[in-house]
Amino acid sequence: MTMVDITGKPEVIREATATGTIKLKAETMRLIKEGKVAKGDPLYTAKIAGVLAAKKTSTLIPFCHQLPLTSVKVEVEVLDHSTVQVTSTVRTKAQTGVEMEALVAATISLLTIWDMAKQYEKDAEGQYPSTVIQNIHVVKKVKENIQREISSERKHEKTQDYSS
Amino acid sequence: MTMVDITGKPEVIREATATGTIKLKAETMRLIKEGKVAKGDPLYTAKIAGVLAAKKTSTLIPFCHQLPLTSVKVEVEVLDHSTVQVTSTVRTKAQTGVEMEALVAATISLLTIWDMAKQYEKDAEGQYPSTVIQNIHVVKKVKENIQREISSERKHEKTQDYSS
Amino acid sequence: MTMVDITGKPEVIREATATGTIKLKAETMRLIKEGKVAKGDPLYTAKIAGVLAAKKTSTLIPFCHQLPLTSVKVEVEVLDHSTVQVTSTVRTKAQTGVEMEALVAATISLLTIWDMAKQYEKDAEGQYPSTVIQNIHVVKKVKENIQREISSERKHEKTQDYSS
Amino acid sequence: MTMVDITGKPEVIREATATGTIKLKAETMRLIKEGKVAKGDPLYTAKIAGVLAAKKTSTLIPFCHQLPLTSVKVEVEVLDHSTVQVTSTVRTKAQTGVEMEALVAATISLLTIWDMAKQYEKDAEGQYPSTVIQNIHVVKKVKENIQREISSERKHEKTQDYSS
Amino acid sequence: MTMVDITGKPEVIREATATGTIKLKAETMRLIKEGKVAKGDPLYTAKIAGVLAAKKTSTLIPFCHQLPLTSVKVEVEVLDHSTVQVTSTVRTKAQTGVEMEALVAATISLLTIWDMAKQYEKDAEGQYPSTVIQNIHVVKKVKENIQREISSERKHEKTQDYSS
Amino acid sequence: MTMVDITGKPEVIREATATGTIKLKAETMRLIKEGKVAKGDPLYTAKIAGVLAAKKTSTLIPFCHQLPLTSVKVEVEVLDHSTVQVTSTVRTKAQTGVEMEALVAATISLLTIWDMAKQYEKDAEGQYPSTVIQNIHVVKKVKENIQREISSERKHEKTQDYSS
Repeated sequence: MTMVDITGKPEVIREATATGTIKLKAETMRLIKEGKVAKGDPLYTAKIAGVLAAKKTSTLIPFCHQLPLTSVKVEVEVLDHSTVQVTSTVRTKAQTGVEMEALVAATISLLTIWDMAKQYEKDAEGQYPSTVIQNIHVVKKVKENIQREISSERKHEKTQDYSS
Repeated sequence: MTMVDITGKPEVIREATATGTIKLKAETMRLIKEGKVAKGDPLYTAKIAGVLAAKKTSTLIPFCHQLPLTSVKVEVEVLDHSTVQVTSTVRTKAQTGVEMEALVAATISLLTIWDMAKQYEKDAEGQYPSTVIQNIHVVKKVKENIQREISSERKHEKTQDYSS
Repeated sequence: MTMVDITGKPEVIREATATGTIKLKAETMRLIKEGKVAKGDPLYTAKIAGVLAAKKTSTLIPFCHQLPLTSVKVEVEVLDHSTVQVTSTVRTKAQTGVEMEALVAATISLLTIWDMAKQYEKDAEGQYPSTVIQNIHVVKKVKENIQREISSERKHEKTQDYSS
Repeated sequence: MTMVDITGKPEVIREATATGTIKLKAETMRLIKEGKVAKGDPLYTAKIAGVLAAKKTSTLIPFCHQLPLTSVKVEVEVLDHSTVQVTSTVRTKAQTGVEMEALVAATISLLTIWDMAKQYEKDAEGQYPSTVIQNIHVVKKVKENIQREISSERKHEKTQDYSS
Repeated sequence: MTMVDITGKPEVIREATATGTIKLKAETMRLIKEGKVAKGDPLYTAKIAGVLAAKKTSTLIPFCHQLPLTSVKVEVEVLDHSTVQVTSTVRTKAQTGVEMEALVAATISLLTIWDMAKQYEKDAEGQYPSTVIQNIHVVKKVKENIQREISSERKHEKTQDYSS
Repeated sequence: MTMVDITGKPEVIREATATGTIKLKAETMRLIKEGKVAKGDPLYTAKIAGVLAAKKTSTLIPFCHQLPLTSVKVEVEVLDHSTVQVTSTVRTKAQTGVEMEALVAATISLLTIWDMAKQYEKDAEGQYPSTVIQNIHVVKKVKENIQREISSERKHEKTQDYSS
């Protein structure tokens, strides 16, 4: 049983994108769109919760390394009359990848939407007959070979710019 | 924008059960069953991660109250050759329900399984073409009416026992 | 050196309100009002950060007790062309007061506004010549005598309702 | 695998005392007594670290319940020319005991003394040939039977006072 | 809404100093100076709380990056018969500045002094008529251009030494 | 009072190993070996708790720096009929050593074993007459001189490989 030893691996720029959806009632979706959810804006709150959660990944997933995330973006989109999609993209310059951070961000964002909307999703017995989170997966992982990059920069006198 | 004010609500026994699944490759499932996953036992690690996460719910979901959980159970079951199901049941005696705690436990457990198994799920390009978390939902919420219970206890001279 | 022993004190309903202000440039205030701050909405983000921070008070202030907050409200108001005021109100039913929780919520909310607006507040040398947080204080502390309340309820057949 | 279900257990006053020692060099002990440790006062810092750690017990020990500690006291005593003893006493009114909280407080206090003194404990090779933490154990656990207490109070017209 | 992407920025040595004051009663100040505050030493406790809080900045302020602080210093000074000033200086070698970390350290230190002294600051009604935190601001931000430094080191054969 | 300033120190590969033991009843040891402990597997749970705790060291020990651990290994071994030994090895590439992280991992692992086994260790009065944690110390600290390593690599065309 062990956390993988990454001591000897080089630090390279890494990016991962994860996504998932939550199915809500049409009535709840209408309240969200009209800004009438009593607890506040579910979509904006979800984004913030997702960013904060990404930074806590190594305290939630036992064998994840502590990675200094250099970018966390969480996008929330209304797909149709009953579906909200959350997509998170995380970056770091580190010795291992950030797909778990992206997955944690997306998942906690989706759960935050649930929490914000839960009073409208419960039925008369206090149950959630239709609310469900679906299809959480990794869209893409990217690892930049810094060595190659440096060589190519020297050839083309062009720097790849990641700063915002 | 606000956390719901529960100051005046009575403390009653509450329970919630949440569940979800993760789809893994048949080969990964075989390694799990044979106890050959290099990072350790994904199912046992997932249970522990789920219990710890349930206790952190109010630090992850912005408007959740801090509830003193009196029981957290996480069960992990191999459903078929490619699916693992996580089911978490959470209890408290508090002023509001624990469905978010059950959902957080189930979700972080599923993500921990992903993390433990990820080296076997990635393809040659480092992508996850088939890994996916599905169907996270609340199975059941229960709220015990303590007042009614007390009356009924007096009638029947019988106490409902929740202790283990 | 010690955390005060509150073991023998009765649990009563407690409430505390704290407030403070941040002085920003007129130009920054305009961007906030017009919703043009690049990092997101400083006022909404501040509210969420304040609610989350209130729940972490006992991990930040060494001798604060862990109190189960039953309500945290953070209000953010534009006072004039250069001042934003944050007011937080916290409630619990516990053995000691929640003024530190209210102060932590207000303070972290104000610091979050700073962080969201910092790119507009810095001068050409990267310094903050005018940004300042002022006047953080406790507006009011309230402690409800539950015993007295119960008697009075019996007399007047009226219940004080704190639930939302 | 499970956190013990304490939902049905009554809340009673509980107290636990734990202790342990750290062996330091005579020279380090002299510096501590003379207040000359460069990083600050090891004994006072240890007390604060112990109190904070007690409150985090349920996030450190996977199956510990979240208990609202009503008192945490950490005492640090120089036993002889090479030994410091830490004793922590923790109280709560809850459904289960606080011995793990007392043990965590004592242990993190002892480790904090180590950290504060480490520059004087290392030898020329950067090793710790003599520093060691010993004898961490529970001195006493107390559980007050509230029911019996109430009866006895009525008889003797005397209230046991735990408040400070 | 987003955390600023700093992936492509170079790591440079950064330092920030923040400060603020708390106004206390003359009687409270006398107790602090004479070491008679019942809960312990407010100034020393405040320093420790400030250092710990600086390290938690990215979990408190939603869009702050996780920066590995290489130095955190918190100084507490009695300014006059009713004022205590806290000044914190934070350093890192990272891709973005540490002014938020310095502000969090100063602010949590000031709130800790409040908590330690609160029993002397409350009036007969349990209110705080005079306690107030004032003038929290950034004194100075410094960013060292490592490239320039390296060149200058080569010229002068002199290394700037930041280690203690 | 201060956290040591490590801003100017070079990042080198560092490793530390710490160890300690817990004495349990022969009967408890038998239950552990037979996999019959009701709360779950104490040894596996201890490993996970140790890894998670190592990553939290800077939030537990006030003046510890936040170090990005690149490897945390916790080994648990049954020494004889009444003793379990925990040994943790931690690695990083950073500006200061990781002995506190190794000590925290070992200590929290030992406390987790206590928690998992406590129902079998208590006597009829609920006391722990024989359970005790002993001999927590640092086995070895290693610091690799990266400069020297690079030179030597050039000579021998051999790279030291730390990755798993």
